[in-house]
Amino acid sequence: MITVQARATFGPEGPFKLTSIERRDLQPHDVLIEIKYAGICHSDIHTARGEWGPVQYPLVPGHEIAGIVAEVGSEVTKYAVGDRVGVGCMVDSCRECENCRKGEEQYCLKGNTGTYAAIDRYGQYTQGGYSTRIVVTEDFVVRIPDGIELDVAAPLLCAGITTYSPLRHWGAAPGKKVAVVGFGGLGHMAVKLAHAMGAEVTVLSQTLSKKEDGLRLGADRYYATSDPETFKKLAGSFDLIVNTVSAKIDINAYLSLLGLGGTLVNVGAPAEPLEVNVFSLIGHRRSFAGSMIGGIRETQEMLDFCAEHRIAPEIEVISANRIDEAWERVLASDVRYRFVIDIGTMEQP
Amino acid sequence: MITVQARATFGPEGPFKLTSIERRDLQPHDVLIEIKYAGICHSDIHTARGEWGPVQYPLVPGHEIAGIVAEVGSEVTKYAVGDRVGVGCMVDSCRECENCRKGEEQYCLKGNTGTYAAIDRYGQYTQGGYSTRIVVTEDFVVRIPDGIELDVAAPLLCAGITTYSPLRHWGAAPGKKVAVVGFGGLGHMAVKLAHAMGAEVTVLSQTLSKKEDGLRLGADRYYATSDPETFKKLAGSFDLIVNTVSAKIDINAYLSLLGLGGTLVNVGAPAEPLEVNVFSLIGHRRSFAGSMIGGIRETQEMLDFCAEHRIAPEIEVISANRIDEAWERVLASDVRYRFVIDIGTMEQP
Repeated sequence: MITVQARATFGPEGPFKLTSIERRDLQPHDVLIEIKYAGICHSDIHTARGEWGPVQYPLVPGHEIAGIVAEVGSEVTKYAVGDRVGVGCMVDSCRECENCRKGEEQYCLKGNTGTYAAIDRYGQYTQGGYSTRIVVTEDFVVRIPDGIELDVAAPLLCAGITTYSPLRHWGAAPGKKVAVVGFGGLGHMAVKLAHAMGAEVTVLSQTLSKKEDGLRLGADRYYATSDPETFKKLAGSFDLIVNTVSAKIDINAYLSLLGLGGTLVNVGAPAEPLEVNVFSLIGHRRSFAGSMIGGIRETQEMLDFCAEHRIAPEIEVISANRIDEAWERVLASDVRYRFVIDIGTMEQP
Repeated sequence: MITVQARATFGPEGPFKLTSIERRDLQPHDVLIEIKYAGICHSDIHTARGEWGPVQYPLVPGHEIAGIVAEVGSEVTKYAVGDRVGVGCMVDSCRECENCRKGEEQYCLKGNTGTYAAIDRYGQYTQGGYSTRIVVTEDFVVRIPDGIELDVAAPLLCAGITTYSPLRHWGAAPGKKVAVVGFGGLGHMAVKLAHAMGAEVTVLSQTLSKKEDGLRLGADRYYATSDPETFKKLAGSFDLIVNTVSAKIDINAYLSLLGLGGTLVNVGAPAEPLEVNVFSLIGHRRSFAGSMIGGIRETQEMLDFCAEHRIAPEIEVISANRIDEAWERVLASDVRYRFVIDIGTMEQP
């Protein structure tokens, strides 16, 4: 086993403490990655606090991982020591089912293996990126293009692919009107990506407090959803709405903003069900859909797209001893727009 | 004005009585149709009883109309006296909006004009097909191909197009697995149409009481939804589910039957909202959608498709004095599979 340093939470309430955890010895197709940066995703908090089901402690979250290959297994062909690489929300899948064979490993029929808080094929409980090193099979590692710095690369592995995949799937492109609900970690990436794809982009945020940022980062329009006029003015006007808000919203109000044949796609899920008025679907052949991260091939495509279009998230880099504070700020929506842990500070007291 | 005979309901409770109503004088583009048959649709009952909003009485329902052209306006070019024609759920729309211009008049942005219980552009309250004659602008009249008898043609104008449109839109074809929820007027047409399009068709009905019919009419498989095993056995197995049931169902159980990227499309709408568990959408990139009848061009395409594939609904022809009884039987699901009124019996006591 390989012993590595990590920041772990020892219970649902935290706080994070420096500890050491073990990674498996390198199997023939494994890559050992020296982690340089790890993004903080809202779902880290949900998971670590047991809000999405029971978890084991100590728990090391983190599924937005960027680093350098430090060692490779005997049969690794895709990566070499020194390569700049990333790992996202999953580290394995069955690789045999219909969905895996299509390159949609995120929808593996046997369930993909989460980067943390999952049992892997070796029977080990997975631990995530808030740590100095990680061992991952080469098929679940992606290459970070030279044009992207490692600190901004990290959030692309979850926030980037989670928004890129539905934008591509539902055809964000010139001539298409795309709305993004919520302007946080995922929302600001959705704006940048949809803008780069050529779509006309509208942000629907609770208030106008981030309007200036929104317009600067690629939005053509920015509306406050706290203003009922917004829903009147924009009725029937979008081809695609990407909802990045996981809280329970009045879904019918947002569906009413779709034009004929439009789709509202949720990339997060509230714990409670949403009450859908079926008339609002039928009246305009609308769809209410969901999308979850993206496959490995598509994640690589997204990274290459970001390099080509010089897209990077807006980040605030923090030291490892400030994770608890950062989590509180994520919960208070006080982040513009993603915290990234500098793993080089792992041992700071 | 043109005085015609009709069967009308004079209040939400009925009963139907023979009466006379007035149709407008023929405008230059109008067609006067001698109605031969009118289908009875479940939505006639909802509407006439005021369950979908207030209506005026006397009310003449009926939006599955088949007949013969008796007279044409001075500028009519599409039809001539003696032509076999049909009229469905709408008799007009704005014809100028984006959706109308696309041939999707059912989704007219100003609202299409319903065949009954609507105010038309002349300010007249529209009255439907349970009558001897109707005046309709030629653009909202379709041609009934020679291969289709008028009695079986009638239900195609609503039950036919309502199921044809989503099957086409979401790509029912060879290699696709389609499930049809509910095996009544709409459901049995969905089965015939999806089978003719080459899809593998499964019926999901409450019980197996109509299984023999289902298999005879084109279904490959037939399951009872009252059996919990059905949901286990069929989990994740469909590309498309057409839900013809307007009652409130456990939508998440049905969504779980969709495979990756599958769509469940409602063609009816329950009065109450449906509680959608968003995780069931996200986990397999599923969509929950709605569809409403079809455009005029698509309705013609559907009729031609039915003629080519020799598809017709299963009907029970009744005389006009039995409408009340037929409605009770519709409500009791005691019809195989569509009642059609023989308008030649209009004046029978």
